[in-house]
Amino acid sequence: MQFFEKLRNASQRNDSLLCVGLDSDPSRLPGPLKGRPAGQLLFNRALVEATQDLVCAYKLNFAFYEAAGPDGLTALSETRRAIPAEIPVIADAKRGDIGSTAEQYARAIFVSLGFDAVTVSPYLGGDSLEPFLSHGDRGVYILCLTSNAGAADFQIPHDLYLRVAAKARQWNSRGNCGLVVGATHPDQMAAVRRAAPDLPFLVPGVGAQGGTAAEAIAAGRMENEPGLIINASRSIIHASMGEDFAEAARREAVRLRDEIRSALQR
Amino acid sequence: MQFFEKLRNASQRNDSLLCVGLDSDPSRLPGPLKGRPAGQLLFNRALVEATQDLVCAYKLNFAFYEAAGPDGLTALSETRRAIPAEIPVIADAKRGDIGSTAEQYARAIFVSLGFDAVTVSPYLGGDSLEPFLSHGDRGVYILCLTSNAGAADFQIPHDLYLRVAAKARQWNSRGNCGLVVGATHPDQMAAVRRAAPDLPFLVPGVGAQGGTAAEAIAAGRMENEPGLIINASRSIIHASMGEDFAEAARREAVRLRDEIRSALQR
Repeated sequence: MQFFEKLRNASQRNDSLLCVGLDSDPSRLPGPLKGRPAGQLLFNRALVEATQDLVCAYKLNFAFYEAAGPDGLTALSETRRAIPAEIPVIADAKRGDIGSTAEQYARAIFVSLGFDAVTVSPYLGGDSLEPFLSHGDRGVYILCLTSNAGAADFQIPHDLYLRVAAKARQWNSRGNCGLVVGATHPDQMAAVRRAAPDLPFLVPGVGAQGGTAAEAIAAGRMENEPGLIINASRSIIHASMGEDFAEAARREAVRLRDEIRSALQR
Repeated sequence: MQFFEKLRNASQRNDSLLCVGLDSDPSRLPGPLKGRPAGQLLFNRALVEATQDLVCAYKLNFAFYEAAGPDGLTALSETRRAIPAEIPVIADAKRGDIGSTAEQYARAIFVSLGFDAVTVSPYLGGDSLEPFLSHGDRGVYILCLTSNAGAADFQIPHDLYLRVAAKARQWNSRGNCGLVVGATHPDQMAAVRRAAPDLPFLVPGVGAQGGTAAEAIAAGRMENEPGLIINASRSIIHASMGEDFAEAARREAVRLRDEIRSALQR
């Protein structure tokens, strides 16, 4: 099954556009799990159990696992396995390298680790993305407009983000291409939607980073289907530092899922 | 000691500007090592032993280790440890993510794994690079102009690569910033040198990718010191697929070191 079909199915099953980012910071684990070698994995398992009926996807940012050394890499692959097979999992790795090297990253992420989709950086151009795109059943979200202040350094001048969106449409011959568009720039997100009416968005920047779901939906939705999913990480997974962390995460996930649902009704 | 000082010392000690890229492809190991769990590490140890008097630095491309799973990550950290302490080692990871995440990558690469320098992607702008740059004793090579055809997609239009070079000068307050400039575009490399007369270059693309050391030296050298190091990976480490791989790598490393030396005399 194609990634975007799997995502659509999961989204309809749970009536949700919420992607929970399992960007689990080992230094911010709740008391009982902190400092344990398997702490990150146990934390994630509890979060998945508490939220799996509320999400359309999970996203794992590789940095938080790589920073934890060998235990972190075990946590990464075991967390991916702990997620029910029908829920797609996105590798938020932001990789980008020349073709022969990109092939190695694609194999690591799609084959060895078994992720359904990946985030990639466009700086090295089309031939650096083709090794990911050639896995036609996996999704490839290309960084377009990121949610941080530094987006103003190179992405916005000369409309680089819109040129990335236009190229991504050309690279979408297999229908497996999406764009990362941050919720913190709603006006520019609307411009990306006009430039790429047919490309699904992965929207970070809601919650801790200050973007709102309502603005993202208004700016980024497609004509006949939502066409975007909204990720929140810290605001959900670190909602409580106490033993009630899983219930707190569930409460915050329900709240955001419903906020997204209401915004869609407008 | 600052990274670029350590690099200068190593370069003077071995009278060499050659960086050997230990981008060891597990599927291309010589017969006796192929398929062994520790094959990649044994391969690298033999290469380091055969070339350590010929180089100014080593570079490890993370993709080739991540693709090999847990054995690969052991090979990555053990290879770094097998390199003599006075030779700097560059993590060719091309990372780039928002600040809170970039901090995790910086910790993984500089602290947990102990690399002396890193390659990073500029797409997310200054705040995404600051967590790396703030490790003032480590080097940060920012992707500027890469050696692949896809550099023409976004790097060259609107002179993005020159704007990256100009920004990198601003971000160099700690003197630990360099640029990745591919040998396959000598004319543009000369333009980067004019835009950033004071930033050291890491030059890939010599050898298997078709660039020449002579053109790179002519286009990229600084006024009073070389100001660049030249990386070759596949052409050296996979020079022979047989049991003589280490001697073949040494021969090719000597040849390229000498070619670079001659080019410097001109």
